[in-house]
Amino acid sequence: MYFLKLFDLLREEFEIGEMKNMFENSLKIVPLGGLNEIGKNITLFICGEDILVLDCGLTFPDDEMFGVDIVIPDITFLQKNKDKIRGIALTHGHEDHIGALPYVLKEINVPVYGTKLTLEILKIKLKEHKMLRTTKLITVNPGETFTLGCFKIEFIRSNHSIADAIITLITTPIGNVLHTGDFKIDCTPIDGEMLDLTRVGEIGKEGVLALLSDSTNSERPGYSMSERTVGEEFEKIFEISTKQRIFIATFASNIHRVQQVINSAVKFGRKVAVCGRSMINVLNAAFDIGYMKIPTDTLIDVDEITKFPKEKIVVITTGSQGEPMSALSRMASSDHKKVTIEFGDLVIISANPIPGNERTVSKVVNELFRRGADVIYEPIADVHVSGHACQEELKIMLSLAKPKFFIPVHGEHRHLIRHKEIAKSMGYNSKDIFIMDIGNVLEIKKNEARITGSVAAGKVFVDGLGVGDVGNIVLRDRKHLAQDGLIIVVIIINKVGGSIVSGPDVISRGFVYVRESEFLMNEIKKKAKLAIEECNEKNFKDWSNLKSNIKKRLSEFLFDKTKRKPMILPIIMEA
Amino acid sequence: MYFLKLFDLLREEFEIGEMKNMFENSLKIVPLGGLNEIGKNITLFICGEDILVLDCGLTFPDDEMFGVDIVIPDITFLQKNKDKIRGIALTHGHEDHIGALPYVLKEINVPVYGTKLTLEILKIKLKEHKMLRTTKLITVNPGETFTLGCFKIEFIRSNHSIADAIITLITTPIGNVLHTGDFKIDCTPIDGEMLDLTRVGEIGKEGVLALLSDSTNSERPGYSMSERTVGEEFEKIFEISTKQRIFIATFASNIHRVQQVINSAVKFGRKVAVCGRSMINVLNAAFDIGYMKIPTDTLIDVDEITKFPKEKIVVITTGSQGEPMSALSRMASSDHKKVTIEFGDLVIISANPIPGNERTVSKVVNELFRRGADVIYEPIADVHVSGHACQEELKIMLSLAKPKFFIPVHGEHRHLIRHKEIAKSMGYNSKDIFIMDIGNVLEIKKNEARITGSVAAGKVFVDGLGVGDVGNIVLRDRKHLAQDGLIIVVIIINKVGGSIVSGPDVISRGFVYVRESEFLMNEIKKKAKLAIEECNEKNFKDWSNLKSNIKKRLSEFLFDKTKRKPMILPIIMEA
Repeated sequence: MYFLKLFDLLREEFEIGEMKNMFENSLKIVPLGGLNEIGKNITLFICGEDILVLDCGLTFPDDEMFGVDIVIPDITFLQKNKDKIRGIALTHGHEDHIGALPYVLKEINVPVYGTKLTLEILKIKLKEHKMLRTTKLITVNPGETFTLGCFKIEFIRSNHSIADAIITLITTPIGNVLHTGDFKIDCTPIDGEMLDLTRVGEIGKEGVLALLSDSTNSERPGYSMSERTVGEEFEKIFEISTKQRIFIATFASNIHRVQQVINSAVKFGRKVAVCGRSMINVLNAAFDIGYMKIPTDTLIDVDEITKFPKEKIVVITTGSQGEPMSALSRMASSDHKKVTIEFGDLVIISANPIPGNERTVSKVVNELFRRGADVIYEPIADVHVSGHACQEELKIMLSLAKPKFFIPVHGEHRHLIRHKEIAKSMGYNSKDIFIMDIGNVLEIKKNEARITGSVAAGKVFVDGLGVGDVGNIVLRDRKHLAQDGLIIVVIIINKVGGSIVSGPDVISRGFVYVRESEFLMNEIKKKAKLAIEECNEKNFKDWSNLKSNIKKRLSEFLFDKTKRKPMILPIIMEA
Repeated sequence: MYFLKLFDLLREEFEIGEMKNMFENSLKIVPLGGLNEIGKNITLFICGEDILVLDCGLTFPDDEMFGVDIVIPDITFLQKNKDKIRGIALTHGHEDHIGALPYVLKEINVPVYGTKLTLEILKIKLKEHKMLRTTKLITVNPGETFTLGCFKIEFIRSNHSIADAIITLITTPIGNVLHTGDFKIDCTPIDGEMLDLTRVGEIGKEGVLALLSDSTNSERPGYSMSERTVGEEFEKIFEISTKQRIFIATFASNIHRVQQVINSAVKFGRKVAVCGRSMINVLNAAFDIGYMKIPTDTLIDVDEITKFPKEKIVVITTGSQGEPMSALSRMASSDHKKVTIEFGDLVIISANPIPGNERTVSKVVNELFRRGADVIYEPIADVHVSGHACQEELKIMLSLAKPKFFIPVHGEHRHLIRHKEIAKSMGYNSKDIFIMDIGNVLEIKKNEARITGSVAAGKVFVDGLGVGDVGNIVLRDRKHLAQDGLIIVVIIINKVGGSIVSGPDVISRGFVYVRESEFLMNEIKKKAKLAIEECNEKNFKDWSNLKSNIKKRLSEFLFDKTKRKPMILPIIMEA
């Protein structure tokens, strides 16, 4: 289990890198997340007595993290340096960049800076956590600057799969630092606002000490396709689908994608219904700040779709990742209160599976086909484009910014390495490129940069209402229970003599069918009895001895008979 | 949980489709597996009093099947019709086509027919299960025929990602049936033996009643690349890698891939070591029957690799799917007894992740990069090709076989549908194409075919030594335990009055850190006490009443405090 190793490793190093040594006359860059794993981006910039936090995201648990709802970064370091944090700046409104804020702001309540849409999406979250009134939010438009301690921060217009994404210029006493956030270069963006390459170039001419740049697509050659190409594909599909209802599943936050669906709907005279809580929330927020253009009489309520002929309906929905509780999955399995996918419906999955979601997406696609729907998805049609720069775009960013030091960020280790290769192919020297790990401290002076230490970093599990109260031991137990189940042996023994008063009683859960294992259950009772008698003979009256002997005897017996290792819990009571 | 639904559904239908109605003057084709899910292929052909079984594969559990080791097909139908089964024919030696045989042959011991390599691989399995002496194996070469009851079977040379794969012609009293098995068309195969298109065409001219054809790659346009292109890529890599050890991970059964590695090694003067139990077993078997050409002095033992300079070494290993216990994973994590990946090593992952394995493969790639290895993998280089026909190849198969009825097989539902679309684009009529579900019975007469019923079909879980003793209830419990863990409440009550003698004692596993939840533990005890007192007041002395009241009170309390729903097990003892 890789994540546990990582967690422990960094915990250990934390003891070495003492904070007090860390505030000298240099700039320190510390990724607390967002490297080598998907999601949960958070980067610290430290200079003198000032800390700037860039992004604060969450990630979703992998298969080994049984029962964990979400994963947020370990912010021990920030908690210990609370008084130095001047603010949090956000690059865009995706979960993996803002999702941990409700948890982190509870610990360190500092002002949050972001563009309009980013803050609108954050507000939805803060409202759910009842934190809207206690959080100071400051809107900064692309092109504007603000000051936090010794840092001057400028937001530069960028492109991504969400509107209002920005590149961050951080001017520090040591020099200029550029952080791209997630980006692509879209020359024909839906809102007409292209990534401000000119501004990046100007800063490059001034001089960039360090560039941190998105590595997600560093394995992909060429150039990412424009968001606009998806709209063109939509138009083609709408044009030939003259007798079907059209369902389109996409990410709620990709409002440009949704805008293009609406444009096609208007052009072909269809009404639009919106399904899924997050889709409705985000669209409302985007509409309120004027980011969506929806002609009146276009939107209808989901309840109304039966009032219109099939060829007059488009449904925009969540569920593009096959999430079992999403609107699309429920519509596909007749589990949705208001809409069910019917024979002849057309469903467009306008998204790619995020790594790890391939199977759930596949299940939904199969389910839709079973219902008799036509389904359009990658690799069948170009109904999705990536929001991340491919190799040629990464080169453009590097050649305009011309940084002295280069730090590939955002992506797994393999992506960082690939991004490093790209920089090397452009003439950069290995020694000026830093492949970092979370918690690493990169210390930069005018002519020198090196990794000088580490701070506490890792993952904190959120399970239900608990933050951090589920850790390695609990997960290990859950894994054990998930693998082979559980056998409980209850025995009441005499206070004085240690002889058995009642039991052994055996209870099993998640082991094997009880009816098929009556033999096993009886044998387990016998073995438990034997184990106690052994202890009595040897005069071992200590309960821990009794328990461990029961465990040992039963484990041996069960493994021999079944090749399984259920968790064995002996419970001994006195009476 | 899709698989559970499927399981139950088909169980139910079994009662409807009575077997006795099923043996009339027609051919019945029944897929007992291998449709709509990956793996576990098994197809029945029934005519008069004869049953022919084609393939008998296993599949691996998905994330929801906690603790299950492998999954095999439900063969209830075969068990009930034992005396009619004339034999089992195998199309090739992959796990998903032969892996369930050791379990199935225990129930129905009939002769097994296959090509040389297929049977050699099967022998390895049978040896492990101590079944080699009790199983009758009959080698059939491509081009040869044999008779089973009213069926005449011909094996036709095919191409796939394993040597010795065949297409099966089944001549029945009703007409010819072709089953492609897994196939691709490789015009430059490594062993020079191309799929026998001419024979397929001849049979097509004679007349084919039904074609069952591989749908795995029906979403991919164009034509699959020849296995030979991988060898060419290997040569290029070997040519420029003059100072590195080279590690190549691939599927053990792809002996043509391994042959090409050996060819490159010989050409560039490198010695070859082989790692991983299944790799060694399969290569030995292939070598024994003359399927591998290895010059003497090429192979060395893994222990010897340190005796040669780095540029003289190639290691062929298992682990291309990132399996945590495989040789490659262990070499990457310094967990292998004899070899460790070192700085500067070159690792080639010559395989694509099977759907569901994306994350584990990614973890290994990242781990290798961390060790300072160069890693070559898709999408970086063409070091793998698929073993399944793409759209243009599927069209060639359809146009040569010219079947009256067409049944797309092998693949998920979406792939079957896509294959159907391909046939329709070639002029086939929807009514002559059958998208089947496992257990469906397709009844074919000379001029007519339709799905007339269903037989028992589904999945059987193998967990440790148990076959089928883990089912829905056990899995549901394991899932519950994996999600939120467990709380056990033990109480001893007075036999007479029902008052509490000892306890409540509380034990938790997989819930939350105990030290952080002392408050919770105390509250749980209080609530449990209260629940019993409530029952005593109302004079509910029944234990099931006591237990359900404890469960209810604790569930409410815990969900309110933690938003979690641990399994609650009240244990009441009398003293």
